[in-house]
Amino acid sequence: MVDVARDRSATLVHVGVIRSDPGEPIERRLATIAAGIRAVIDAHAPSVVAVERVFSQHNRQSVMGTAQASGIALLIAGERGLPATTHTPTEVKAAVTGYGAADKRQVQAMIARILRLDEVPQPADAADALALALCHAWRGGAAQAPTGGALTPAQRAWADAERLARR
Amino acid sequence: MVDVARDRSATLVHVGVIRSDPGEPIERRLATIAAGIRAVIDAHAPSVVAVERVFSQHNRQSVMGTAQASGIALLIAGERGLPATTHTPTEVKAAVTGYGAADKRQVQAMIARILRLDEVPQPADAADALALALCHAWRGGAAQAPTGGALTPAQRAWADAERLARR
Repeated sequence: MVDVARDRSATLVHVGVIRSDPGEPIERRLATIAAGIRAVIDAHAPSVVAVERVFSQHNRQSVMGTAQASGIALLIAGERGLPATTHTPTEVKAAVTGYGAADKRQVQAMIARILRLDEVPQPADAADALALALCHAWRGGAAQAPTGGALTPAQRAWADAERLARR
Repeated sequence: MVDVARDRSATLVHVGVIRSDPGEPIERRLATIAAGIRAVIDAHAPSVVAVERVFSQHNRQSVMGTAQASGIALLIAGERGLPATTHTPTEVKAAVTGYGAADKRQVQAMIARILRLDEVPQPADAADALALALCHAWRGGAAQAPTGGALTPAQRAWADAERLARR
């Protein structure tokens, strides 16, 4: 969870990984994930939710599990009345590093720099989640939110310059 | 929803299709589906839940939506403390028609016969859901449930004979 100002500067609010026991039946694992997401949303009251868009061309079994978990994140957003958006991993990497094929370490390093963290977020999935949140806010997602705001032309120009400088 | 006795005879309890508005954002559609599933479970208090197992080799977009919806059905089972199991469409068709490649009309006709219905369940998805429930009960799924029971050797022999006769 991140707090993104109108000038696009961002602050870390919360980061975490919800783990479920692989030995548990799927319905209990999904309930564990749902409880974890609800707890974070209830604690920090975000205005929007971003979820990674899942594609099916990769490993079959893992994609189905990821799709189910992403469906649950979207469901909880819907049940809390929060708008939700999905972004592809390529969009997320491009938004934070300027390079859609960036590797996990590049994303972690850039997230640490953007959020002014002393250490890179661990595991890589946690950095990916923060990157997704930043991507959502920077691509205008926060403009949908009651507390967000669209960029002014000057802010947009600055943002574009910033993005170019990062390449 | 079906009630399956120890002698494998089955009775229709409830059948329905939960529809969401394709014009709504995905998070609201999933919330509509979740509310519909919860209402049916609360009204009829099943002892087990069966969900179709989704594969990713088919149409990409539709599979992701189906995986998300199936994840929500599994989640609700988990949150209600109900055991859940998934079955493939081939397993379901084989269980109710004796033929894994049966078409939708064959499944509908067999479901109407098994449940002694005056009309075939409409739409075909509703018949598929009833077939899934029967498949789950007949394959021993109901044995997991507090109110279910495993087949005796005699019942198993009768069941096998019945299955052969259906071919």
